[in-house]
Amino acid sequence: MAVTHPTRDNITLENLFVALGNPMRLRVVRALAAGGEHPCGALLTGVSKSTLTHHWRVLREGGLIWQKPSGRELLLSLRREDLDARFPGLLDSVLAAIDSADAAGPAPAAVGGSAAADGTAGPAGR
Amino acid sequence: MAVTHPTRDNITLENLFVALGNPMRLRVVRALAAGGEHPCGALLTGVSKSTLTHHWRVLREGGLIWQKPSGRELLLSLRREDLDARFPGLLDSVLAAIDSADAAGPAPAAVGGSAAADGTAGPAGR
Repeated sequence: MAVTHPTRDNITLENLFVALGNPMRLRVVRALAAGGEHPCGALLTGVSKSTLTHHWRVLREGGLIWQKPSGRELLLSLRREDLDARFPGLLDSVLAAIDSADAAGPAPAAVGGSAAADGTAGPAGR
Repeated sequence: MAVTHPTRDNITLENLFVALGNPMRLRVVRALAAGGEHPCGALLTGVSKSTLTHHWRVLREGGLIWQKPSGRELLLSLRREDLDARFPGLLDSVLAAIDSADAAGPAPAAVGGSAAADGTAGPAGR
């Protein structure tokens, strides 16, 4: 499984923001911020495999996540060290903003995969 | 000229990041961060009118800028107060990151409108 990641120095601000410009990807970043490696199938439910693959690619190319093969799965983790070194303070501000946006309630125009959809259309296993 | 802006409470994090996910728009945000109102024609040069219109729309819908008609022009300014209220600290981190990225040299794959192009293809008047 050939998965390429940008080096720390090749993480660009515009690709980083492109990766953050989607509510599902923001949810993934927030979940990964807790630390550790997460099987990619556990992070977003009720989403087609091709959509998932797209989101992982955009997050990877934006320099936000590591994707490591592990058996038949991919484990995802946040590139906190690289992001903090490249753009000091930015990731923390982004995470704080995600939290405050969540506290203010869901965005008016959620793009599928909302909490309600998870309960009704999710595949087996969360 | 009917120009609509999201209210402060309707600024969403994903639209904000979509607006920031482009090197030209990052340059505009940086220029506006100095404060004041700027005629839109002076902010990006060597770019077609339709491209400009697109960038202003994405920035406006992301809640990053005010666009005010003034005679035959539009004046742009940064919505610093709204952004600071909605996502405290985020704009400052973004601006710091833009500055540090600029200090590190231009991004490897600039999307036109670079400093070099400004001198050769800009419209009359800056």
